Amino acid sequence: MKTIAITIKTVEKTGVLHQIAEKLAIKNFNIIYTHLFVEEDNTGTIYMEIEGVEDDHELINYVNSISDVTSVEFHKTLSDIYGKRVIVVGDGEFMAQAVKGGIMEAEKHNINGERISVDGMMIGGGTQIQEAIIAISRLPRVCALVLSGSMMGGKITNAITRLKESDKEIIVVTLQMPGDVLTASDVTVNDPVQAGAMAVRMVSDIDKLDVYNQII
Amino acid sequence: MKTIAITIKTVEKTGVLHQIAEKLAIKNFNIIYTHLFVEEDNTGTIYMEIEGVEDDHELINYVNSISDVTSVEFHKTLSDIYGKRVIVVGDGEFMAQAVKGGIMEAEKHNINGERISVDGMMIGGGTQIQEAIIAISRLPRVCALVLSGSMMGGKITNAITRLKESDKEIIVVTLQMPGDVLTASDVTVNDPVQAGAMAVRMVSDIDKLDVYNQII
Repeated sequence: MKTIAITIKTVEKTGVLHQIAEKLAIKNFNIIYTHLFVEEDNTGTIYMEIEGVEDDHELINYVNSISDVTSVEFHKTLSDIYGKRVIVVGDGEFMAQAVKGGIMEAEKHNINGERISVDGMMIGGGTQIQEAIIAISRLPRVCALVLSGSMMGGKITNAITRLKESDKEIIVVTLQMPGDVLTASDVTVNDPVQAGAMAVRMVSDIDKLDVYNQII
Repeated sequence: MKTIAITIKTVEKTGVLHQIAEKLAIKNFNIIYTHLFVEEDNTGTIYMEIEGVEDDHELINYVNSISDVTSVEFHKTLSDIYGKRVIVVGDGEFMAQAVKGGIMEAEKHNINGERISVDGMMIGGGTQIQEAIIAISRLPRVCALVLSGSMMGGKITNAITRLKESDKEIIVVTLQMPGDVLTASDVTVNDPVQAGAMAVRMVSDIDKLDVYNQII
């Protein structure tokens, strides 16, 4: 029994996902992650990671036999290809430095067989940053958040508290700055390059930095 | 009729997505993007963007009434919050510079109300880069790819050709380097910072750089 990923192209019409999910449910395949797009030509693309697959070929033949399916492709899961995500949110030169620190650190880990990517979201403004932080719990594969700015607090702090209460385990690293954001984050770092690098090391499986044991 | 996003928390069991999609299909709601996770505590989270919604409250009440649904939350779509994604793939200092160029350029656009993020995937090795490029067509919101390395070609070039043939319209910017990768990309740029910035300007709606009209 293993987890595999497939991409299904379909004729797009209301309810087509329902049909396909139904057909997979009958066979006791368990969809653990899926996303669906409607393409510009009005066809649909469904990406699915499915648990409990005994026979890949049987699954593919089965999906191919579903009406409205035009093709099925079998491949590695997005987690295998892209791995963990570290998201950096903030603005200005310091934020770019934090992304750079994360990326350079990720290179070392990726050479050793890990997969960590660093996503930079250059935005300012309390409301925009608040929205971006809250929505992180809805993004796949995110393991750490780095906040880089001149001053953060209030609604941003509330957003972090809310993120921490969600089911996801997301480490929050904050640059040293004025504002009560520091009270909600896991670690505060002075240097932006180091903040990015530290976030990557904290989510790494190899050469992991256990910050909690360093600060006693 | 508008597009709205909801997050549904459910009891996780095989087929629960099917049940929910079925209930939405009956009501003629059209799911245009969805993703589903299984959380560590074995509950499920379903994020859905749904087209053709006339009454938000009616939808939320309706979803709440479905068995196995524990909560429903209504919010902005991920596209509204995170916007377009530029992905930079490659390794070394130049790659970090390309990400930095993209991020600094994105700041200007985001201040003006756009949403563009830059995702750095620091990897080397033909096979790994090939996999990452092919899988980009399965990622949401990606508009441009920047390739930064010392030499790329062969299977990487084939992967770009395949990406170009997919339904997605993704701009490919490549650093000047040896290898036939240049033949498959849209633009070749000498300076890595400029390559990242250019990719952001090419996907922007405001202050858009129309490269094709510059090189005649």
